[in-house]
Amino acid sequence: MRKHISSLSNPLIKHLLLLQKKSRLRKTSGEFVIEGIQELTYAMEARYSLKQVLVCPDIFEEDISLDALDCEVLEISKAVFEKITYRSSTGGVIAVADSKELTLEKLKFETKSPLILVAEAPEKPGNIGALLRTSDAARLDAVIIANPKTDLYNPNIIRSSVGTLFTNSIATGTTSEIIDYLKKHNIQIFAAALQDSSSYLEEAFTGPAAFVVGTEHEGLSEHWRSEAYKIINIPMEGKVDSLNVSVSAAILIFEAKRQRLNS
Amino acid sequence: MRKHISSLSNPLIKHLLLLQKKSRLRKTSGEFVIEGIQELTYAMEARYSLKQVLVCPDIFEEDISLDALDCEVLEISKAVFEKITYRSSTGGVIAVADSKELTLEKLKFETKSPLILVAEAPEKPGNIGALLRTSDAARLDAVIIANPKTDLYNPNIIRSSVGTLFTNSIATGTTSEIIDYLKKHNIQIFAAALQDSSSYLEEAFTGPAAFVVGTEHEGLSEHWRSEAYKIINIPMEGKVDSLNVSVSAAILIFEAKRQRLNS
Repeated sequence: MRKHISSLSNPLIKHLLLLQKKSRLRKTSGEFVIEGIQELTYAMEARYSLKQVLVCPDIFEEDISLDALDCEVLEISKAVFEKITYRSSTGGVIAVADSKELTLEKLKFETKSPLILVAEAPEKPGNIGALLRTSDAARLDAVIIANPKTDLYNPNIIRSSVGTLFTNSIATGTTSEIIDYLKKHNIQIFAAALQDSSSYLEEAFTGPAAFVVGTEHEGLSEHWRSEAYKIINIPMEGKVDSLNVSVSAAILIFEAKRQRLNS
Repeated sequence: MRKHISSLSNPLIKHLLLLQKKSRLRKTSGEFVIEGIQELTYAMEARYSLKQVLVCPDIFEEDISLDALDCEVLEISKAVFEKITYRSSTGGVIAVADSKELTLEKLKFETKSPLILVAEAPEKPGNIGALLRTSDAARLDAVIIANPKTDLYNPNIIRSSVGTLFTNSIATGTTSEIIDYLKKHNIQIFAAALQDSSSYLEEAFTGPAAFVVGTEHEGLSEHWRSEAYKIINIPMEGKVDSLNVSVSAAILIFEAKRQRLNS
């Protein structure tokens, strides 16, 4: 018999709720929350270490083998489960896991011409999630977040990434650290910005390349502009002068994929 | 002296609040609400007829000339303004305007090879807004919404489109009507779907072309598949099997733009 939790005042449930809300607690404890079967499966494939897996028997459909899990497995009532999860379509599972240090040094490239996305200080968890989803589809060699405004284990990032936080190779760092890293590895920096830029269609992205995108409001910091190999833009022919950051990144990334297919 | 409104129970304010909330009222009255200087400017350029323009003197910075407006102009208190607007960055202006009938017959193409986006039954206003923003940037010849689940004058669509609802040529219709329309105008239908499809990179989009995208959950209806000139996909190399619809549309549209530049 598994331990059964049916009270919101259970210490583990209280801890889990705080982990969802508090970036600070995620940092000090080194733990975070994973909600949903697909997300949990990706995290396990990425060798995240699980602490507790909480299963709601009324919803759970045995998509994963609980006996094979190398961690504590508990049952929770439907009432508690619905209070601590954001979505109904999670497959009845929520877990506490150890976070990883997402440092630049841990990145490994399997190809001689890595293709990398760098996002500087993205504001909205939904934007980071969308970037990760596109990066998964393009199977980028790395996604690097410069000066993140939240830790990447924010539940809104995991959710909007549909679990691709775990399928991508991810690192964070300061803008200076990332520029040093890219230069050390001879990766060409293509900074997306309007001013003094050329069309992305005039450039070749077949060598080791990193696209750097900023926020819609702030754009990129000057440091990127001065250190970039090229400053590129996506020609805008309409009335508005910017695209959603995940749309811009996708256009650049898939143009690089196209060029690499033909090269 | 302009009429000044400082009460939420003023009939015009009550009407405006209902117009924001009720799709049904927007349809029966033929009116809708425009919030923000940029949005209002685009709507005026698109020759939308304004009924009332409400200005909050505490915020408004004379970005547009009120005296030139061919409609009633009223002043409202900051308290009322903040209650009836969603955002603070609107420039202190909100208006009631007449909607337009967005029929296929009204579309006009200035080029021999129009490039068109068709979105079938998009669910989220935010997704429609993002599609419109991308379509503006690419200066598409038309955006057509098939079987819309909400009227396009939904305030969340206007807001997330950053006003490009007014800068695009837009029509709505049923899937059958749109297919008939595209065939009558000899526009090739490229339906985005996974099953029995070829990579978008193998196709030429230099002739009259319409990209058709469905929802992430439902995909495209069978009708599109059977009537399409080609069924195309964006190769997915990662773990997840779909991209955000606005990301997919952007990748296809900007590949077409690239081809047309080089053709």
